[in-house]
Parts: sequence; structure tokens; C-alpha cells
Amino acid sequence: MTTHRLAELTTEEAARAVTASPLVLVPAGAFEQHGPGLPLATDSIRAERVADLVATALAGRAVVGPPLPVGVSPHHLGFAGTVTLTTTTFAAVVREYATSLHRHGWRKILVVNGHGGNNATLSTVAQDLLVSHPDLGFAWTPLTSLASDVVAGMEVSEVHGHSGEAETAQLRHLAPELVHEDRLVPGTTRRAELDPLGTLSRHTGITLPVPYDRLSRNGVLGDPRRSDADDGKSLVDAIVGRIVDFAEEWLAS
Amino acid sequence: MTTHRLAELTTEEAARAVTASPLVLVPAGAFEQHGPGLPLATDSIRAERVADLVATALAGRAVVGPPLPVGVSPHHLGFAGTVTLTTTTFAAVVREYATSLHRHGWRKILVVNGHGGNNATLSTVAQDLLVSHPDLGFAWTPLTSLASDVVAGMEVSEVHGHSGEAETAQLRHLAPELVHEDRLVPGTTRRAELDPLGTLSRHTGITLPVPYDRLSRNGVLGDPRRSDADDGKSLVDAIVGRIVDFAEEWLAS
Amino acid sequence: MTTHRLAELTTEEAARAVTASPLVLVPAGAFEQHGPGLPLATDSIRAERVADLVATALAGRAVVGPPLPVGVSPHHLGFAGTVTLTTTTFAAVVREYATSLHRHGWRKILVVNGHGGNNATLSTVAQDLLVSHPDLGFAWTPLTSLASDVVAGMEVSEVHGHSGEAETAQLRHLAPELVHEDRLVPGTTRRAELDPLGTLSRHTGITLPVPYDRLSRNGVLGDPRRSDADDGKSLVDAIVGRIVDFAEEWLAS
Amino acid sequence: MTTHRLAELTTEEAARAVTASPLVLVPAGAFEQHGPGLPLATDSIRAERVADLVATALAGRAVVGPPLPVGVSPHHLGFAGTVTLTTTTFAAVVREYATSLHRHGWRKILVVNGHGGNNATLSTVAQDLLVSHPDLGFAWTPLTSLASDVVAGMEVSEVHGHSGEAETAQLRHLAPELVHEDRLVPGTTRRAELDPLGTLSRHTGITLPVPYDRLSRNGVLGDPRRSDADDGKSLVDAIVGRIVDFAEEWLAS
Amino acid sequence: MTTHRLAELTTEEAARAVTASPLVLVPAGAFEQHGPGLPLATDSIRAERVADLVATALAGRAVVGPPLPVGVSPHHLGFAGTVTLTTTTFAAVVREYATSLHRHGWRKILVVNGHGGNNATLSTVAQDLLVSHPDLGFAWTPLTSLASDVVAGMEVSEVHGHSGEAETAQLRHLAPELVHEDRLVPGTTRRAELDPLGTLSRHTGITLPVPYDRLSRNGVLGDPRRSDADDGKSLVDAIVGRIVDFAEEWLAS
Amino acid sequence: MTTHRLAELTTEEAARAVTASPLVLVPAGAFEQHGPGLPLATDSIRAERVADLVATALAGRAVVGPPLPVGVSPHHLGFAGTVTLTTTTFAAVVREYATSLHRHGWRKILVVNGHGGNNATLSTVAQDLLVSHPDLGFAWTPLTSLASDVVAGMEVSEVHGHSGEAETAQLRHLAPELVHEDRLVPGTTRRAELDPLGTLSRHTGITLPVPYDRLSRNGVLGDPRRSDADDGKSLVDAIVGRIVDFAEEWLAS
Repeated sequence: MTTHRLAELTTEEAARAVTASPLVLVPAGAFEQHGPGLPLATDSIRAERVADLVATALAGRAVVGPPLPVGVSPHHLGFAGTVTLTTTTFAAVVREYATSLHRHGWRKILVVNGHGGNNATLSTVAQDLLVSHPDLGFAWTPLTSLASDVVAGMEVSEVHGHSGEAETAQLRHLAPELVHEDRLVPGTTRRAELDPLGTLSRHTGITLPVPYDRLSRNGVLGDPRRSDADDGKSLVDAIVGRIVDFAEEWLAS
Repeated sequence: MTTHRLAELTTEEAARAVTASPLVLVPAGAFEQHGPGLPLATDSIRAERVADLVATALAGRAVVGPPLPVGVSPHHLGFAGTVTLTTTTFAAVVREYATSLHRHGWRKILVVNGHGGNNATLSTVAQDLLVSHPDLGFAWTPLTSLASDVVAGMEVSEVHGHSGEAETAQLRHLAPELVHEDRLVPGTTRRAELDPLGTLSRHTGITLPVPYDRLSRNGVLGDPRRSDADDGKSLVDAIVGRIVDFAEEWLAS
Repeated sequence: MTTHRLAELTTEEAARAVTASPLVLVPAGAFEQHGPGLPLATDSIRAERVADLVATALAGRAVVGPPLPVGVSPHHLGFAGTVTLTTTTFAAVVREYATSLHRHGWRKILVVNGHGGNNATLSTVAQDLLVSHPDLGFAWTPLTSLASDVVAGMEVSEVHGHSGEAETAQLRHLAPELVHEDRLVPGTTRRAELDPLGTLSRHTGITLPVPYDRLSRNGVLGDPRRSDADDGKSLVDAIVGRIVDFAEEWLAS
Repeated sequence: MTTHRLAELTTEEAARAVTASPLVLVPAGAFEQHGPGLPLATDSIRAERVADLVATALAGRAVVGPPLPVGVSPHHLGFAGTVTLTTTTFAAVVREYATSLHRHGWRKILVVNGHGGNNATLSTVAQDLLVSHPDLGFAWTPLTSLASDVVAGMEVSEVHGHSGEAETAQLRHLAPELVHEDRLVPGTTRRAELDPLGTLSRHTGITLPVPYDRLSRNGVLGDPRRSDADDGKSLVDAIVGRIVDFAEEWLAS
Repeated sequence: MTTHRLAELTTEEAARAVTASPLVLVPAGAFEQHGPGLPLATDSIRAERVADLVATALAGRAVVGPPLPVGVSPHHLGFAGTVTLTTTTFAAVVREYATSLHRHGWRKILVVNGHGGNNATLSTVAQDLLVSHPDLGFAWTPLTSLASDVVAGMEVSEVHGHSGEAETAQLRHLAPELVHEDRLVPGTTRRAELDPLGTLSRHTGITLPVPYDRLSRNGVLGDPRRSDADDGKSLVDAIVGRIVDFAEEWLAS
Repeated sequence: MTTHRLAELTTEEAARAVTASPLVLVPAGAFEQHGPGLPLATDSIRAERVADLVATALAGRAVVGPPLPVGVSPHHLGFAGTVTLTTTTFAAVVREYATSLHRHGWRKILVVNGHGGNNATLSTVAQDLLVSHPDLGFAWTPLTSLASDVVAGMEVSEVHGHSGEAETAQLRHLAPELVHEDRLVPGTTRRAELDPLGTLSRHTGITLPVPYDRLSRNGVLGDPRRSDADDGKSLVDAIVGRIVDFAEEWLAS
């Protein structure tokens, strides 16, 4: 077997992978605005590249399964090009990926999720699978928030996040050919720029979602110019390392 | 108007409350095991009492709407008495509460959620409402995690959580008559007691749900004997205070 | 065991109740207008109190399960404060209560239903359970119509029903503190007040639902002043007695 | 226009019927066991014939719309040949018939329902249409229970009902060629033949459905030999007359 | 057994038919416009008559099951009288017919489909049944396209199809009493009459559905006057013959 | 704009593409067995590459939208690695892609479909969109069957199809690096190898799906060795040319 991508395996190779590679990594992305400088597929690209790196590090004990190129992005629909699934449909797709893989014998699935809008739905799928498929292990991991310590070490704006310093840095490292350096401009960078509802939506304990056009005129939170590919490499290395550690423990459990 | 409970108002009083009390607090609980000493309704009781306290503090500007006495508890089904909704059904109920209230004119709904198992589904509802009801503000708040600093100041076990120090303390303060002090016994209190999968399920960044009978033989995490009603009061005061602050800002926005 | 309310039991007590208390009573109410003098929760209050009385009479052989505080009330949405579930969602909730209880070993569930708008959906759930859970006994009972002979003995208006003589009497008996005696006024009391469609909707054989604002300007059918708490006691005693008789036979079957 | 059956009209005739024939009668039947002497389609036959008779009596002011040849019959699945829809699917079909007819301009739909198992679902559809199509009048009528006074005047067994005296009489009158007179045999005719659960399922106030094989070995309740075609004519005449009266009033409203 | 129609059998006869008549033919039609000269039920009539003829030819080895009188006709909703199911609901009905029959022991179901609009949904049902009921054989057959060679031998218009030469011929043969010969007029007969989108919708390889009012002012494609009952007989004979051949092979497999 | 892939555009570029590129091509594939020599993603690869070629030929008037990497493959679940969606979920995903694009202003969507198992579901989506989104043009195209004349000109086995001559040829041309030439072996190549049910499933007029392991031991129909990359180029050129012709006409309509 020369690749860890299930899509590129034959069915006979897949049959062997059930035993040799008991962990399936499912990359989950989004198809949504990422400001004037990053492509719509930013989250999918990060998820797929990280999944590849994790699989490489696991050296044959994991395969990368079918991707989820479109996620849950209703809050970005105000920006052209955003394609979203409802939470119900996204959940159904994830569940049917999982149950198909389960049918062939896999018992460990880890969704590598590049888009925060998918988090809640992934958790609901995990909850429902506890009852319907009690012998299936189903986990999901975010990306950037796994390395919040690394972000904290970067020089980020007071307000930062979507398409901002940390995300742009990752894309610079993983897919620089898709970053329009000349078009990267700051979005909302200071709390004072947020209206009262926008401020409430950034509360750390209480959840109050608002559409992104309420938070930022250009869809960006933070200043993407304030990071570089080295930051991106640090972030990705940390993310990959922590997912690999988790996977190693899981495979050994 | 002498009560803030919508259930106890007449329809004419409700009509006035749409204007006078523009915020509706919806208490969300669970019907699930809480170890040998606490009742199945523990989370519902905490949610309803906190909602009452928040409404009281808001002095007429909020009403307490219909409760959600059963939540999403598939991970507790191994323990007798647990009743659960699927994530799909729980989402439908919350959405239909919200759209009924919206129809009468309310535009601000805050779910006061006593059960962590409901978190993900509440977020999916919030996401879907962004598209279907863009003029409705829909928020949800957890309880204990709003006061994690207070928990940190308590003497808690290395492993603590469900039915443990902080939760038992709250119930001691809010409904002591339902706490069986003589049956309170520790559950899993040290990391070393967890098997490898249980340990992974407690990872701070990656989500891997397991059934609770895998985490604790008696359904308890922590030692409920190591807290008292004063701790509970401190927790509840902090929780209520922070929700009230949020609500004040929202009402003013 | 000192209470018959499942919500107030611990999981260990619930485990014993599966055997000791093989019947679960599920109170089903509504969250809807009840005219100028009664609270929105009128049906829920009646259902819960009757369920309590039935459980008390059965002396440990029944528990009261999780309540259904919101029912199917589309016909009352024209009046402020009414919250409704669709028939699909209400059915899903009832079914999932039933299947959760079934999972723990209970085989007899009786929904004590305070709201006529729930009747049809409860019957559809019963029908579908015949196929999906053939070993589960699932029944539902109305309240007032179980005692129609008692109503017939009262002095009721030509048109009577929702929030009228019999219902107000019950609330006077069960929860007098929630009855606004000073605001009780008659609604539609004579057939001649109904328009042709309203008249057709009262046909005894053919079902033609209309919104309640078509039937009554203030949401009341009948004259709530024409009954008292003694009538309410007679009604409740009859209702409870007949449910208890049914339950005794069922438990013995 | 020479027929009242919408199925046999052309689209141009249908366009005229929206105005000339503002009432649509939808026959609802079942595909289920009717004992050793009656065909599986018994309920559909009765519904379609009665609808035809009602339309004839209304002399052009009503059309008979598309039939519902299969209904909700889970309680008869123990007997060969029974085909059933779930309540969810039956509801969807009825709703989509109604909304298609509504789209063309019809505002009055009356389901002529030959099968008691459909009652509850028809009521749920009516409830949901109140919200989704408030300008549509949607009604449903049973058959035999509209003429319970006529049944009371017949010599029926102590236990009677499905495939018994009244139903067989109707089929003798409406479709004698499908009645196997030589195979008509009594089913359960006395209460003493019912087991305790069967007895409870016949309670007049509380609903507790059981599969029909629990009630009767051959699927019959009553003695089909104790009625004749004249009884059937009396029943059908009464049923048709009462539906026509209702329809006249509705058309005039 | 004197009939092959399951609807007309008793349950005892149905029980024998499971063995004696292992194939169930389910006629699927539509309730939709068929131009100025044919009735709305045209497709249902053809399906039911063909099913009868196939069953007759199979001499007891097949029964005709419950019909599907309404199909998937959204493209005809612009014409009065058309009643349609969504694809989701039509699929649910077909699946529940199939699973009910499967429950009684039948393992071979052939939908005899008179309406092209049902084709896709029938295929989706067949696909889903492969997983849920792997031991059930589920097939569907169209009518006219089974005899495209016969159509090719007729004198048809350049554009022909719905309510045109071949379909009208079949109805003339099968139900002449429902054909309004005096109202039969041509619809769209030449490609030049179609607008660009209409032309694209007739592409032989790529599917681009358009509403029928875009294709033809009177709902007809072709000239129904250019065929006669003899053409209809040739078509029906060919269709029936080919279905019978298929069924014979299937029964022998 | 330097790419036609919507995924790689920024939101600002997407906003311009709504006008400049009014056609969206959505590649639909499958994740399923393709015999011992081809990868699981074979259909997705063909769909995406053909979509790219069509977009290139349209020179800016079309964009390639989000892909569908997993399709409807229940018939291949017997072979390891196959991942399938139910028809319901696949339909929901396609519909939500379409309605998201519609929201931004696109009115022409063409699904470029590499997998026959998706055909039926795509047609059902097209039917339902006629009612819900009447101003949206939604089309889908197959690949190989658009060039059946080219296949007819190749030397193919008596039985050929899935993973056989024509499909392998396309992959040799489009992604030779993923074709394991050394493992390409014939599957079922002669009708005589099929069992009776397998033969019936290949009927040209009647649809009777069977699982693929019933048709071929190794999942292949035909002999993949009997074609080469030149055949693949001829096929792809023909397919692309015909889709481009269709698209040109549509864009001009």
C-alpha cells in the first residue's frame, strides 16, 4: 500500500486496510467566504492537508476517508459563494459515512474538522451513534483551537478569528498558491468596532450566533497581514502533533 | 403581573408580556441518572430554579417560558430511569417553542440549560434559525461552566463533574429536600481509575463520547461529599449574576 | 420509596421501581390560552395533579414519569402565549419517552392527557408502537370526557367546553391559587352565537377543525362562573376513580 | 360534465369543476383482513361507494377526488394480505392530496373514511393544515359511527364491530358480489371470550390498542350472519344522508 | 381462487396466494392532466389494465396488489386537476406497500408503472431496499417504452409523447368510453414549436425537466388523432407480452 | 479570474462569477469498489476532470461548484471500502447545494455525474425543485452513456460496464497514475456467466437491481485489458463535446 487515501485504494487494498489501518480520518471542511484574500475552500484545504499529515505520521495505521467538502455555514450565507448544508443533512452525511465504514469493519473514526460551524453537528452525530452503533468509536477534533497556546504566542489583533491571523497563517503554509497576499486586508480588529449584539455574540460562556455580516464588513476577524508562513507551520505542527498523540493512544487502547 | 412564569399567566397577561418582558428564558434539563444520592431531575431542577432567579433579578423584563424536562442523554441510558430524546427530536421541540414564541412577537429567547448533553443540539438549532428566522435572537447558556472560576476555588477531586462536588453543591442549595445526604458516595475521583478509552473521552480538545457506565460504576464523577450548600450558593450566585449581566446587555442592545 | 414521581427518584430507586411499579403514568398537557381567568398551563396542571392522585391511589404500583408540558395547540395560536408542537414532533417526543422507559424494562405506559388537541397524535403513536414495540402496552386517557356523566349533572351552558364550566371547576379544586375569579367571564354560550362554520365544527360525527378565535372572542366556550370547586372535586374524583379502575385491571392482566 | 369522478374528468373539465363543484370528497379505505367472508378492500369499497352516493345527491356541487386505497392498519398485520402505511406516510399522502387540490383553487375537502384506523391520522392532518393552509377547509367523516342509532336498532352481538353485523350488511348492499355468504362465520361475539387485555382495549373512554389477533381468532368481531342487505341499505342511507346534510350546510356557509 | 386481485381476496385466500402466487404486481399511475380528450386517470387506467392482463396471462402465479392512484407529477401542476405526491412521499408509500407484502412472505414485487414521472422514485426505492430488505426482489417496468419498436412503426408526429399518438391509442383500446374523440386535438407536434429551453428538455442524454406548460399549450405532445384502437391493441399486446416473459423468467429463477 | 473552480475563488470573485459565469457545474461521483485495478474514487475523478474540461471549454462562462465525493452505492456495499449515502440523504445534499447557489443568484446548475447509481436520485431532486424553486434550471448529465456510439465502436465484451473497457479507458486517459495496469483482470464478460437473476437485472426495459457481488465475483463487468488510453481520450472528448454543446445552447436560451 503506497497511499493512505482510501479514495485512491482499490477495494482489495481497502479490505486489507480494515485490519492494517484501523483508524479512518474523515476531513470535514466548509465552502464559505474567507474574506478578500482566501479561497472559499480554505477550511476544506486545511482539514485535508492536516489529515494527510496525521496519516503520514501514523505510518500506515490510519487511512484518510471520504471528505466532507461542504459543511454548516448559515452564518456566512450573506457572502457570495457560500454553500451550506442544514445541520440535519450534514449530520445524515456524517452518519452514513460512519455506518458504511462500520459495515466494512472499521471501529475507529476521527473527523478532522477544519470548520467551527460543524462542531455542534458532529457532537450530535456522536451522541446518536452511542445508541445506534455502540461498538463504534467516533471522535472529532477541531484544528486551530487545539493549538490555542501557539495562537496566544502570535501577535494577533484584539478581535481575531475567521480568516484572521491564525487561519491565514495556516493557509500560507499549506497552500500558499491560493493566498492572494495583495488582497489581504484587516477586517474587524477591535472590540470597539463591534455593535452591542456583535459583542454579545463573542461572549465566552453564552452562545448567541449572529450572521457574519453583522460582525465584519469584509468577512474577516483580525488582520491577516500580521502573520506569516512560519506561524502557520508552528500551528500546523502543533495541531498535527496533538492529533497524532491522541490517535496513538486510541489505537493502543 | 405577579409572576414571571409564562405558564401561570393568562393569555391576556401574555399579550402584555410580549412588550413588557421581551426576553423569554426557557429552562432545559434532563431526565437522567445522577448517582445514588441525587434525583433524576437534577438538571431540570437547577435549570428551572436558575431561570426563576434570573427572571426575578430582571424584575419583569423577562418571563420563564415552557420547560424542557427531558433532554439528550444517550450516554446515561445504561442507568435505570434515564429518559432521552434523540438529537433530532430535541432540536424539533426547541425550534417549535421558539417559533411559537416568535409568532406572538418575542424576539429574544435564552435557553437556560442545566445539562451538557443538550449543548450541541441547542447550537444546531441556533444555526438553523439564523436562516429560517433571521429576526429572532436565540441564545443558550450553560450553568456550571459559567462559574468555572468558582469551581476552581472549591476542593474538588482530580476527576470531577457529573453528580460530583459542584453539581451536588448546587442541589444542596436549591433543593436540599431532594438530596439523600446519607447515600452520597464518591464515584470515579482519580484519573488512574479511568481505562484508556475513558481517559481519551476526557481530552480537553478532542471529542470522543463514551457511555457513562464506562466512566464510573455508580454514575458519579468526583466526590459529592466534598462540598456543601454554601459552595452551592456561591456557584448559583455567580451563574445567575453572569446570566443577568448578559441579559441586561442584550435587552439594552 | 417515599415518592411516586420518577423525576424525584434516584437511578437506584428507579431500578427497583421497574419491578415494584410496573405502570408509568405520563402527564400530557398543553401551553395554551384558557381565557381571561385561567393560566396557560391549565391542562398541564390538571394532568399532573390527576396523575399524582392516580399514583397515590395505586399505592406504589405506579410511578409518574416525565411530563409533556407542551402539546398540540395549533387551533389556539391566535391567542397570545400559546406554544404548540406539530403533530410530528409531539409524536416523536411521546415515542421516545416510551422507548426509553421500555428499554429499562417497563411494559405498561398510560398517558394521562389533559388536552383534547393531543388525542389524535397519542393514538397515532399507539398505532405505530404496535409494530415497532409489540411487547409494550401503551394507553392514553382523556380527563373530562371520562366523567361526562358528571358534567351532564352540572348546570352548563348550551355551548360549553374549553375553559368553561367543567374545566374551570377542576382548576378551582386543584389549583385555586391560579384561578382569577374576578376575571372569569362567559365566552360563547349559545349555539346562535356561532357562525355557520363554527356550528359545523361542533358536529358530533364529522370532524372539521377551525381556529378557536372563530369560535369565541375571548377563547372561552361556556360560562366559567356557573361552577364551583365542589363540582371540580366531583369531576376529579370521578376521573381519578375511573383511571384507577382501569389501571388496576391492567396491572392484574 | 357527466361524471362526478375527478379521475374521469379531463383537465379542462377539472378547471370548471373548481368553481362548479367546490367540494372534493376523498374516499379513504384500507387494505386489510376482513375475516373469512369479506375482501381485503372492504373499507375502500364502502368509502368509494358512499362518496359516489354523496356526490350524486349533491348534484354537481361535489367531485370525488383521488382515493386512498391503503390506510393505517398495523393492528391487522397478523392476518395475511394486510398492507399498511405508517401514520407518518398516510398523513403525508393526505396532506399532499389536499395541498395539490388547494393549489388549483379548491377550499373544501371532505375525506369520506371507511376505516377507523385512519381516524387519528386524519385529525392530525387537519390540525397541521390549520397552520400551513389557514384558508383551506379540511374535514373527515367516519361511516358506520355516523349511523350508530341504526346499528343500535339492529340485532347485533354483545361484542360486534370489525367485519361484523353492520359492516357486512353494508357490503351486502353495496357489493354483494364480493361477499362470500357461505364463508361468513361468527368471530368473537361475547365479552367473556375476550382475555383481560382484550377487554381493556374495548374500554369506552381509555384507548389501549391491541393487535386484532388478540381480539379474535378469525379477525371478526360479531356475527356477520345476523344482518342482511336491507340493514345495509338502512345504514348506507343514513350515512349518506347525514354526510349530505353536512355538505349542504358547508357549501352554504 | 377466482380473481387475481388481492383487494378482492379474503385474508385466507391471501394466505394461500403467498405460496401459489409468489409475484405481486403493483399498478402505479398518476392523477394528472392528459390534454383535452383524455381523463386525469389515464396512466392509472393503463397500469391497472395491463397489470390485470399480465396476471391473467400468468394464470394464478401472480396477484395484483394495491394500486398507486397518484404519482409524481410536479411538472403537470400548471394544469387543473393534477394531484401530485412529492418524491419523498411516493417513495414512502411504495416502500411500505413492499415491506407489508414482504412481511406476509412475498419476495417478488413488480411495479407496473404507467407514468414516466414515477420512474426515478421507483428506482430510488429499489436501491434503498437492497440494503434494508436484501431478500426481497423489487422490480419496476414502464409501459410504452417497453414497446418502442411498435411506436416506431406507427405514424407519429415529429414531437410526440404525453397524451399523444401512442398513449391515446392505448386508452382507445383499454377504455374507449373515457376517450373524448371529439375533443382530441394536436398539441405540440414539431420541434420548431418548442422554445430553446423546451428543446433542451427533450435532449436524449441530458436531463433538464421543465413544467409541461412550457412544452405545450394544451398539455399534449403529438397528435392524438393519428392513431387508433388497433395501434393501441398492438402496443398493449407487446407490452403485456414482454412483461409476462420477464415475469416467467423471474418466477423460474 | 484565473480559475473556474468556485472552491478556489474568493467571495468577491464568486460575487462577480454569478454574472460572468451563470452556469455552475457540480461534479457527482461515488466512493465505491471498481475492481482490483481501479481506485474507489474512480467515478469522482472522472466527474471532476470532465467538469474541469467542460468549464475550460466554456471559457469563463461556467464555474465548477462543490463536488459530491460520495454517491448512492448500496449495490456495491458487498465490496470493502464502498461508502454510500441513502437516496434521501444524497437528494438532500444536492438540493441544499442547489438552493445555496440559487440564493446567491445562480439560475443554471448542471450536475456532471460520473456514477449511474446517482441517476435516479438526481432526477427526483430535479422534480421536486420544479415546485420549490420554479425559477431555477437544474439539469444532470451522465458521462459514458453520452458517448454510447463511441463505446459501440470499441471492442467490448459481450457483458461490459462497471470497471470494464470504457470506464478503465477513461481513467487511463484522465488519471493513469491511479490505474494498476498489472492488476487489471476480466470480470464477468459473457452472458452465460450470469445466473438467471443476474440476467434479469440486465434487462434493457425493466429495472430489477441486484447487489454487484451477484453479478461479478471481482466487481468488474467486462475486460478492462481490452481498451487503452486512446479509447479513453475518444470517449472523454465525445462526452465533453456533447456537454459543452448542451451548455452553450442553455446559456444562449
